[in-house]
Amino acid sequence: MTFAGPNLESVLDPKDAAECARIANDEMAELIAKHPDRFVGACASLPMNDIDAALAETDRAIRDLRFRGVEIFTDINGKPVDAPELMPLYEKMAAYNLPILLHPRRTNTTADYEGEPTSKYLVYTNFGWPYESSLAMARLAFGGPLQRFPTLKVVTHHAGGMIPYFHKRVQLSWDFNEMRMGYRHDGQMLTRAPLDYYRMFYCDTAIQGNTPALMCAYDFFGADHMVFASDTPYDNQLGERVTRETIEGVQAMAIDEASRKKIFADNARRLFRLPV
Amino acid sequence: MTFAGPNLESVLDPKDAAECARIANDEMAELIAKHPDRFVGACASLPMNDIDAALAETDRAIRDLRFRGVEIFTDINGKPVDAPELMPLYEKMAAYNLPILLHPRRTNTTADYEGEPTSKYLVYTNFGWPYESSLAMARLAFGGPLQRFPTLKVVTHHAGGMIPYFHKRVQLSWDFNEMRMGYRHDGQMLTRAPLDYYRMFYCDTAIQGNTPALMCAYDFFGADHMVFASDTPYDNQLGERVTRETIEGVQAMAIDEASRKKIFADNARRLFRLPV
Repeated sequence: MTFAGPNLESVLDPKDAAECARIANDEMAELIAKHPDRFVGACASLPMNDIDAALAETDRAIRDLRFRGVEIFTDINGKPVDAPELMPLYEKMAAYNLPILLHPRRTNTTADYEGEPTSKYLVYTNFGWPYESSLAMARLAFGGPLQRFPTLKVVTHHAGGMIPYFHKRVQLSWDFNEMRMGYRHDGQMLTRAPLDYYRMFYCDTAIQGNTPALMCAYDFFGADHMVFASDTPYDNQLGERVTRETIEGVQAMAIDEASRKKIFADNARRLFRLPV
Repeated sequence: MTFAGPNLESVLDPKDAAECARIANDEMAELIAKHPDRFVGACASLPMNDIDAALAETDRAIRDLRFRGVEIFTDINGKPVDAPELMPLYEKMAAYNLPILLHPRRTNTTADYEGEPTSKYLVYTNFGWPYESSLAMARLAFGGPLQRFPTLKVVTHHAGGMIPYFHKRVQLSWDFNEMRMGYRHDGQMLTRAPLDYYRMFYCDTAIQGNTPALMCAYDFFGADHMVFASDTPYDNQLGERVTRETIEGVQAMAIDEASRKKIFADNARRLFRLPV
């Protein structure tokens, strides 16, 4: 499984973005056709600065190129992922019964403090990305998408962002603020407990081989909602290191072999509906 | 161990802040004197909008009131915690050999997206606070304080913020950005590996009883750098629930009893130099 992943919408005008998405997705399809022993499928890049073009490219990628999902970023040109105009995409992906990969985005131009030109010490990516994932998950969970399309499947990056580590904080904070601070939920009506919405997500294993973190994610999402991902090639050894360390990290998890097999392969087969 | 915790500097003019800090710290001292069976010490609130007043109150609290540390927030009126004018405080606390408690701060007026008046779904606290802790830790680690005062002891809230879950991401990102992206560290010269600076911190156990998260924190910080804290009274049962669940969470950790005793008591005795 592979995907290209450029956030086209932030740098291109809508017409160029649509064309770039087609080129990227076509190249990906060629790559898969050429190396069926190495790639079992791909997820589509979408021109999200034009929702109609994004919907059309989704159809083309899934129907014509046989792609098995789409990728979006944690904000859409600065707008939250629960913006009303995005609902048709969620409706469509729920109907296809294929997942959305949710990828975080923030650049070092998001400064950490007023008066500073850029983010220092790689904070924008090291912590900013998992934070953006968590924020986007909150918007999908409580802002409409997962309430309106409860069968929608969203895979969230970096082992679920901050949710597995802080889920009891979320629960306690929700209870505290409702019961003692008079907080009133400011989104759609919830028909499930808040944490149950976060449990609807799937998390990947891209946490660079941190086994205790993987155990924490496993504890929250469970064996059926965790899919292997390596974050390749983002390391200093052209991808060798992070692939090796992520595999080793999952192998070191204190879980039964059936669960490990789910994480390494079975869940992905089911989620992306792969014929292999 | 207890502390008052108002972030005085953000709401008061310097003169009022200094007076409020004195009142708060005096009341805390009275409380401890009145209930020696319940409280073994306290940490001081400081009027951080006037560093000279904050330094004077630090001396008064530690020398006259026998306080065992001070509390600061993750930003000082919007400025980062490695601002040069704060260095005398770090120097002083390193000289006293007593810890700084680092508490996160962000209100719902920090909106998550442009065009929205406030943060939705409690994101500002649920995820924003641990994010602010992580950001402040990066600034203390790489912006000067921990390099200039390597014996300084800082206790970070909510089980170390995002560090224990994402530390391998930090390491990989640092290696990747240095070796493949030409990133040049933009702070003080580092004389240790980046993660070793994060390991200089002490983390607390205020993660609301999430045992896998505590194991993750333990894996990163080790048995000697983890101190029990309950986050009381922030729950919907006037503090009963979070205290109970945090104790249970630590009791459920798969560690030896000597390590558990360190977390529950010995580390705090050593860190705050308590005569009990």
